[in-house]
Amino acid sequence: MNNISNLQKARYEYKPKLPNVLKNISLVKVIKGKLTSSVSDADELKNIFPNTFGLPLINFEVGEKQDSEPINVAVILSGGQAPGGHNVIAGIYDSLKKLNSKSKLFGFLGGPSGLIDNEYIEMSENLINEFRNTGGFDIIGSGRTKLEKEEQFEKVLVNLKKLNISALVIIGGDDSNTNAGILAEYYVKNNSGVQVIGVPKTIDGDLKNDMIEASFGFDTATKVYNELIGNIQRDANSAKKYWHFIKLMGRSASHIALECGLQTHANITIISEEVEKKHYSLQDIVEYIANVIVKRSDAGKDFGDVIIPEGLIEFIPDMKKLISSINNLLEANKVEFEKINELEEKRKFVLSKLENDLQNIYAMLPKDIASQMIMERDPHGNVQVSLIETEKLLIELVGKKLSEYKKAGKYNGKFSARNHFFGYEGRCAAPTNFDADYTYSLGYSATVLIAAKVTAYMVSIRNLSMESSKWLPGGVPLTSMMNIENRKGGNKPVIKKALVELEGKPFKELVANRSKWELENDYVYQGSIQYFGPSEIVDKRTRTLELEKVHTKH
Amino acid sequence: MNNISNLQKARYEYKPKLPNVLKNISLVKVIKGKLTSSVSDADELKNIFPNTFGLPLINFEVGEKQDSEPINVAVILSGGQAPGGHNVIAGIYDSLKKLNSKSKLFGFLGGPSGLIDNEYIEMSENLINEFRNTGGFDIIGSGRTKLEKEEQFEKVLVNLKKLNISALVIIGGDDSNTNAGILAEYYVKNNSGVQVIGVPKTIDGDLKNDMIEASFGFDTATKVYNELIGNIQRDANSAKKYWHFIKLMGRSASHIALECGLQTHANITIISEEVEKKHYSLQDIVEYIANVIVKRSDAGKDFGDVIIPEGLIEFIPDMKKLISSINNLLEANKVEFEKINELEEKRKFVLSKLENDLQNIYAMLPKDIASQMIMERDPHGNVQVSLIETEKLLIELVGKKLSEYKKAGKYNGKFSARNHFFGYEGRCAAPTNFDADYTYSLGYSATVLIAAKVTAYMVSIRNLSMESSKWLPGGVPLTSMMNIENRKGGNKPVIKKALVELEGKPFKELVANRSKWELENDYVYQGSIQYFGPSEIVDKRTRTLELEKVHTKH
Repeated sequence: MNNISNLQKARYEYKPKLPNVLKNISLVKVIKGKLTSSVSDADELKNIFPNTFGLPLINFEVGEKQDSEPINVAVILSGGQAPGGHNVIAGIYDSLKKLNSKSKLFGFLGGPSGLIDNEYIEMSENLINEFRNTGGFDIIGSGRTKLEKEEQFEKVLVNLKKLNISALVIIGGDDSNTNAGILAEYYVKNNSGVQVIGVPKTIDGDLKNDMIEASFGFDTATKVYNELIGNIQRDANSAKKYWHFIKLMGRSASHIALECGLQTHANITIISEEVEKKHYSLQDIVEYIANVIVKRSDAGKDFGDVIIPEGLIEFIPDMKKLISSINNLLEANKVEFEKINELEEKRKFVLSKLENDLQNIYAMLPKDIASQMIMERDPHGNVQVSLIETEKLLIELVGKKLSEYKKAGKYNGKFSARNHFFGYEGRCAAPTNFDADYTYSLGYSATVLIAAKVTAYMVSIRNLSMESSKWLPGGVPLTSMMNIENRKGGNKPVIKKALVELEGKPFKELVANRSKWELENDYVYQGSIQYFGPSEIVDKRTRTLELEKVHTKH
Repeated sequence: MNNISNLQKARYEYKPKLPNVLKNISLVKVIKGKLTSSVSDADELKNIFPNTFGLPLINFEVGEKQDSEPINVAVILSGGQAPGGHNVIAGIYDSLKKLNSKSKLFGFLGGPSGLIDNEYIEMSENLINEFRNTGGFDIIGSGRTKLEKEEQFEKVLVNLKKLNISALVIIGGDDSNTNAGILAEYYVKNNSGVQVIGVPKTIDGDLKNDMIEASFGFDTATKVYNELIGNIQRDANSAKKYWHFIKLMGRSASHIALECGLQTHANITIISEEVEKKHYSLQDIVEYIANVIVKRSDAGKDFGDVIIPEGLIEFIPDMKKLISSINNLLEANKVEFEKINELEEKRKFVLSKLENDLQNIYAMLPKDIASQMIMERDPHGNVQVSLIETEKLLIELVGKKLSEYKKAGKYNGKFSARNHFFGYEGRCAAPTNFDADYTYSLGYSATVLIAAKVTAYMVSIRNLSMESSKWLPGGVPLTSMMNIENRKGGNKPVIKKALVELEGKPFKELVANRSKWELENDYVYQGSIQYFGPSEIVDKRTRTLELEKVHTKH
């Protein structure tokens, strides 16, 4: 083993807390409950999933001891890292071995591509012990290859059969779990004898519904960001001279921004879903921020912070239109565009090809941002939205707006800003006790579903806002979370992505506190993640979970 | 009180550990030891400081109980934030009140300017309790006004006298403490009856010598950065597709970069002092990084991390020359330059005015960096070195170099990079147990020096690598840490800044491990700061301190 930090060594010894029903794995009985449908488009989905649509919900209960045959199981990690992935694998491993010590767990390497290319390792006690309660996906790696074609499904099947594997656990986000559902249906249809079970992973928090109260990793990642935001707020409140513009990961959804806003009481928290709903333009957002800055400045506070969700730019209707137009015109004028060498000339070329109203918007953008939009594009030739430095864009535009205000005598302060982007900083942190417990329990639950011979399920653990002993593990049919959406030019079945609900309690709490947090220095300094110490510190849930699930509290 | 996080509430209850000799403050006896000189330039310094040069070192011992008169003391926080500042103030407050409950502590607001403008608050138990063991300087704020003119000294004296204050504690870095020394001399010369005591503060770690083993805040700040770097390394090692270029605060000195490199085993840690000593050019650094990337890529590792010290650019001889030339030519061509509107035209103007060899270097810089250098300048019209995004500069230049290698058939990998800059994230974190104990003890020690009626001393606590009970508190004359340096056109007495010593043990440990850490994934994931739990986690010292002071270990 490499050098191991003292904290990591101590965390190896942490025993994740299991729900009562899972404490003796050989006594767990599977109870099939009410039959499910889908989020919408039931008829269409029934056609696509004739064998796996409408399955019942599954709960676990304590039953009588049963003998288990040995089972060989495969597991992959799919997509972006999230704290707790290693514990899902540890949970599967421990529970499988407890049920039957002859069972085997194979980890396929580098995500879905490992399944296709037959690259794997067999999990051992020694290996697992090196990764208990640690962050990262480095135990077997992860990848973004999409497992969606029948040709791939067949290759995977051949590889699984070689190892006598009868169940595959896919740890991933909404896309990976959608594909898990399609794979499951395909394997049932062809009597392949391989079950497919999904596990809800993503720091973004957008894989969420009645049965999936939280995806794992959200708790840990947001706590890392809260630590950093709190430190920055304390710095702002000490130096009293900077506005900090902080962009946070989270892809399209603003769950992370919202959770961090609620926990830290940032002066401004932008929520993309609200921007879209209210048809805010980029100028509207700039003016909103500038007005808060003026208000605070009038109160003697030339400092503060703004939380910006990663996906914001795509939720601003005019920017969305601009990006889509640029994508189209670059595609249509590919040859001509590629011939231009100078970035500034490229920018002028794009400008000349845009329609009138979009031309104005593009011309208004700072040149470096305008260039950023056309400089690096993804493999499909599209603008790389995630690389656009929204935080810098807003600083520049807000600065201009404040200069206008100053000239007009409306603002008398000093605006100096600093930008930050947090994402990679939290995706691989060592899981909080909550995420360590949750993921380990998810692994145990996956084993229960596998032993029950079901397929096309996602592991579901409810009552997460309560102490772990009271959690309710079970399974939810993958199809029950799906609807039909238009993606890349075709109607496709997909697990419905959870965006921030403007009628939900977390967003309402933000709205209720907005004007107070804007003006006052009501910052809450959450500090670094604690693994030892009083329960109110080490087991604290996210504010999102507390608010969303308060009705399940006793 | 505002909303307080559970962790902060728990930290209020933490009782900082004191050295044995300070445990009963009314028994502490001051022992004057050997007379001091200065780092160099003794004769010149003796002339400048006729009253405060050559004072003896001071140690504390346990003596007999003595009655103390009430004393009124002033305290200010000066310069950038560092974790533990609040505990210095709490330590002064508690010890003053223990010596005589009629003593008073006044906090002057917003740094040195508060002293000049007579803005202050009197410290109370209730106020202090809200700030115990917390990060930030928000209790009284900080500022960067320089207290260096006699006219200011007189104003301050008037304000202090109004409150019957006989001692002033200045919590600051090397510059603030240099000025504290000048102020102390002035007050002795004029029989002002005000003592001046300095406290060594800075996360940068560059206020360090035989008597000052560490400045406070370095421990906490580097631990926050280590957490983040470790999380990023784990992410890199999981996704296996990104190189992360991480710039770290620390001004001129590379202590923070070195400490973080040693703790995390980053693949590459650049040390400015080495760059300067070995006369590396920007191209040398780019090639060094590119060569490590090629080496790792050949071993199948297209990922890694590079730690870059904030001040790097000024230590690269050719860049230093370039920056200085630009400063001069902008000054000489001020009117003409200001007339140019377009940034690109400004860049071309600067380019045209540079000498031949510097022209080549400036032309080689990416346009956005070249523009950054002339876009925002400080109040003196100089290039703002700290705003140059060195991390992005290196990514761009390394990318170009790797493209050349690829064309030449020397590199076959994929280079994708992400940039980070950490500074504000750590300056206001809640102090680690070490920094909480150290700063509280510094506060106590300041009171002892004040009660002993000495002036022109900095508080010094040695044996910091040992457990706190064995620490050796005392005082060191400010002049003894000074030398004469040329600053802004004149020879001035200054406390010698500690840069990374290339012959020191910390740097040697880096060198000894360099090739191993470059190639292997030997990352150490330190995790978040822990305040509760096993001592080997919550009391762990920095690697820098362990290595530098290992000879004092038992």
